[in-house]
Amino acid sequence: MLKNHVIDTPDFPKPGVMFRDISPILADPQLLAEACDAMIAHVEMSEIDKIVGIESRGFILGAAIAARHAKGFVPLRKAGKLPPPVERAAYKLEYGEASLEMRAGQGRVLIVDDVLATGGTLEAAIDLCQRSGYEVKNVTVLINLSFLNDMKWRGEKIPAPIVY
Amino acid sequence: MLKNHVIDTPDFPKPGVMFRDISPILADPQLLAEACDAMIAHVEMSEIDKIVGIESRGFILGAAIAARHAKGFVPLRKAGKLPPPVERAAYKLEYGEASLEMRAGQGRVLIVDDVLATGGTLEAAIDLCQRSGYEVKNVTVLINLSFLNDMKWRGEKIPAPIVY
Repeated sequence: MLKNHVIDTPDFPKPGVMFRDISPILADPQLLAEACDAMIAHVEMSEIDKIVGIESRGFILGAAIAARHAKGFVPLRKAGKLPPPVERAAYKLEYGEASLEMRAGQGRVLIVDDVLATGGTLEAAIDLCQRSGYEVKNVTVLINLSFLNDMKWRGEKIPAPIVY
Repeated sequence: MLKNHVIDTPDFPKPGVMFRDISPILADPQLLAEACDAMIAHVEMSEIDKIVGIESRGFILGAAIAARHAKGFVPLRKAGKLPPPVERAAYKLEYGEASLEMRAGQGRVLIVDDVLATGGTLEAAIDLCQRSGYEVKNVTVLINLSFLNDMKWRGEKIPAPIVY
């Protein structure tokens, strides 16, 4: 069970927040491969041209999936990291607020992040990809904190290898 | 030539700094694979247990290399992202200052980043990996701005697929 390898750390980065540390999964080649495979179990990869990874941990999982399936990788970055012109989307986090930015492009994409909390980040990412010219074919995360969100994709809760 | 796919953007993120935008390389599966292969041309991969990626773009290249070679991945993060206990190293950037953090671990590692500028980040990363319990077997970057540094690894300038 991938879930058994997540280290729960209470009150990080803020009091009342449980930090889900996935580093034991990333550090083990077999677990990393298992996580990548499980994350795309619901995805028709032949329909995907590029993987969009959300900064920062979505970069790790997204790039690993891209490499395993010979797809391109597109970074969806925190504000101020990409040179203009960029599209921007602001959103609320489980704790705090942030903005994501992306450059214009095209192709059919799979959006990848590590944790789905309230859904704010992923909804902003979908919006941003569409406004930037991409066709969002699917979304995936390693961990769905489903008690924090009721986010749907094509009428279903976002499937994930690890669900709380 | 990988270099032909880098987009030079002057005065970003600060006046006088030339931003080297590698997104065209990341977005193309063949170029991404070519970049990953070229980055490890000087590395004996059988000696490597884990890839250490430096946040954030080192996450992309590091995770892609990890996935292509069935290695584990260890994130070297910006300060405040990892729950304690962590080791920390402060360093100077081409523009500004920053700190990196890492959790204790073990194994023979290859450190990966996108751009080698002054060398401050990479030297801090090597120091941090060693203090955290890892054996640093090698280092690699996609771009070496060699006019900004004279950094050596085993007596040689750091080899890179793209050199300025």
